[in-house]
Amino acid sequence: MFATPDEAEHAFYEALEQGDYVRLMQVWADDDDIVCIHPGGMRLQGHDAVQQSWRQILDAGPVHIRPMSPVVMTSMLSVTHIVIEQVTVRTRDGARLSYGYATNVFHKGPTGWRMVLHHAAPAPHTAAEFDLHDMPDMLH
Amino acid sequence: MFATPDEAEHAFYEALEQGDYVRLMQVWADDDDIVCIHPGGMRLQGHDAVQQSWRQILDAGPVHIRPMSPVVMTSMLSVTHIVIEQVTVRTRDGARLSYGYATNVFHKGPTGWRMVLHHAAPAPHTAAEFDLHDMPDMLH
Repeated sequence: MFATPDEAEHAFYEALEQGDYVRLMQVWADDDDIVCIHPGGMRLQGHDAVQQSWRQILDAGPVHIRPMSPVVMTSMLSVTHIVIEQVTVRTRDGARLSYGYATNVFHKGPTGWRMVLHHAAPAPHTAAEFDLHDMPDMLH
Repeated sequence: MFATPDEAEHAFYEALEQGDYVRLMQVWADDDDIVCIHPGGMRLQGHDAVQQSWRQILDAGPVHIRPMSPVVMTSMLSVTHIVIEQVTVRTRDGARLSYGYATNVFHKGPTGWRMVLHHAAPAPHTAAEFDLHDMPDMLH
């Protein structure tokens, strides 16, 4: 049981360093809404999908990552959205679509809900098919 | 004033679509702790840096992004960390360093603080110099 977010984060990177998959999964909430996006990878949702990805990674050996220079945002009322961004680039040859993932965090303050974080990154080409496959209504 | 995070997010993408830089910055909290990471870009912190980056982008014309398939995480007690990840890859020729940005979100539940989001993406090569320049203590 982690008493602070810092403790949880410390345990996360330590578990990677030690290749300790069981410890790593203790850091994650036991929840079907958790999300993990590895660099260049798909958006994985739910405990099973996240667990499987880390098992695969740690099966190949420990991962040496040092978290540095943190920016910390605390809020009593906060909502996090993880969205697929469909980007339309208009070229001479017509419109071209590409995809990204964005984490948007909103805090509620005296002036209502405002954005405090936009973290966007390229998504794999398969993101569109995979992520939108089960929700065709989102395409219209 | 946005009554919900959804309204704020809608206004965000609408402002991009319309190339409306003033409207866009109304969505962001007026705070020195806000963070924006454009795809492949540096971690920008603070209202001025974020504002400047969007002005530059929108000066080139509107941006057509459609947010789809959102995963929404709500929590009464939530902390967001945006860290630089220094990744050590051990090769035959010795250790090689690379850098990424990760957004880690933690929620407080009945079992203490647990991770609910890890969104990691590659950072530009210059991330290390730039981000760590003013905090040499983080390097040790």
